[in-house]
Amino acid sequence: MKNFIIRTLSGLAFTILVIGSILYGPVAFAVVFGTIMVAAVWEYLNITMGKGNLGETLLARTFTMVAAVALFVNMFLVVAYGYDPLYLLFAVLPVMGIFISNMYVKSYNVHQIKEVDGKVERVPNGYETYPFTLGALVYVALPFSLMSLVLFDKSGVYNGNILLSMMIMLWCTDVGAYLLGSTLGQMLGHRLFPSISPKKSWEGFFGGLVCSVAGAVILRAAGLLELTLVDAIVVGVIICIFGVLGDLVESQLKRNFGVKDSGKIMPGHGGMLDRFDGALLAFPVAIVYIIFFAA
Amino acid sequence: MKNFIIRTLSGLAFTILVIGSILYGPVAFAVVFGTIMVAAVWEYLNITMGKGNLGETLLARTFTMVAAVALFVNMFLVVAYGYDPLYLLFAVLPVMGIFISNMYVKSYNVHQIKEVDGKVERVPNGYETYPFTLGALVYVALPFSLMSLVLFDKSGVYNGNILLSMMIMLWCTDVGAYLLGSTLGQMLGHRLFPSISPKKSWEGFFGGLVCSVAGAVILRAAGLLELTLVDAIVVGVIICIFGVLGDLVESQLKRNFGVKDSGKIMPGHGGMLDRFDGALLAFPVAIVYIIFFAA
Repeated sequence: MKNFIIRTLSGLAFTILVIGSILYGPVAFAVVFGTIMVAAVWEYLNITMGKGNLGETLLARTFTMVAAVALFVNMFLVVAYGYDPLYLLFAVLPVMGIFISNMYVKSYNVHQIKEVDGKVERVPNGYETYPFTLGALVYVALPFSLMSLVLFDKSGVYNGNILLSMMIMLWCTDVGAYLLGSTLGQMLGHRLFPSISPKKSWEGFFGGLVCSVAGAVILRAAGLLELTLVDAIVVGVIICIFGVLGDLVESQLKRNFGVKDSGKIMPGHGGMLDRFDGALLAFPVAIVYIIFFAA
Repeated sequence: MKNFIIRTLSGLAFTILVIGSILYGPVAFAVVFGTIMVAAVWEYLNITMGKGNLGETLLARTFTMVAAVALFVNMFLVVAYGYDPLYLLFAVLPVMGIFISNMYVKSYNVHQIKEVDGKVERVPNGYETYPFTLGALVYVALPFSLMSLVLFDKSGVYNGNILLSMMIMLWCTDVGAYLLGSTLGQMLGHRLFPSISPKKSWEGFFGGLVCSVAGAVILRAAGLLELTLVDAIVVGVIICIFGVLGDLVESQLKRNFGVKDSGKIMPGHGGMLDRFDGALLAFPVAIVYIIFFAA
């Protein structure tokens, strides 16, 4: 019971923070979402690279964090204040720093070869985990940075309603999946992707789809989602499908590293990566659709 | 002797192709450098992910290749034909495809845990190599794509001379490093980075530095490198330092995977990645300097 209250309160506080920052204005968005991104990048690095080699890889992780922040901030400056898109190049320099700093990780330059079943194999020395720094940038920092692209209407006026609607559709997907998954899904049990997520069912997926599309239609009727009806429905479908896929992609990641929650920043909810796993895949696809294909 | 002739001829043909494409015009550049990039990405994936799991990872590798080509082509279209920079977003979609296709690699969802010295460790199942697909994009495709940024002068007229000059400075670095490294370097033997590259010496590095800067000054005097003297020298220094670092970064990569040459596309010269290892680090840094800091 106490856990339930803590979980509810921290979930509520987080929801208010996210919605509030989008409604408040561009700078509030940048501060709150930038901070969430930093936490998510940090969680991702801890999951994938472990904590054992923190000392050796601290420089590479720092460059990763600098690159993530540079990408997010410069994308925001380009969109919000009309900076030249070339400013995004400043995110490239710290990436070069990642590659160079790897040279100074001693264990990466110590190689052991062993024979397994007659085949020569290398013994892992940690080097194989370094590209997860690039994963932190492409999988975590890039989707967060792309959110800026839907924050302003064509005349350059701030309008967080589209991003807010996308967030609400993602939550609708979760709610619908929970409602149908925990009832019909448990009864009929057509499992969605058992090797990654044993509990997810097709019933839950379709519950999510119905709720996400219904959410899109209602948001449009309420005047928040300024798209045609067809585009609103398509975005609802995209958010649900890629949201579920994003969920599975993060589950696969965590399973591969034997981790249950991405972090413990939110009492009762795990980490930031867990909160945004669906968004990491769904938002980039939805944003591309809205920018290029919406009427 | 026969090897020497083959090596010389294939090196000469390659040099003519690279220089010729830059001089010929933007489309020739895009075709030749795009093709080189595709070969380099493919080599990089084979080195880092191995060839054993080719069947299982073919989809992820295909998405990687599509993302690389989309990045290169769209960057070129943005710079050469004034396309909206938003077109770069089309490189984001295939990246989402990489993440999703990983879900369908069976071995990634089979986990084995073993105990080593009382610590629980996971047995590698191949999943740990998947972020090298992102490495192929950030480490290989991005630097190639950024080259487009210095191909046009401020009035939009094609001028490959800066990229050509950067290429020549990189070759000057190699020549200078070879001349001083194989003579003074062998005699005095101040080793540069023995754990990665036992043969490289500080003498070779300074030989490269002198030649690269001399090259910059001469290229400037010849009217090819249209920068102030100070900027030309700075670019010469950047190309040498980051070229050598790029060389070491690729050596570290190859050593970690027990590979000598990145490929065998060029008789006697190894692969495309070997030809461009210095450029992968040196060009992005030089390009940022030229765009933002050159007078």
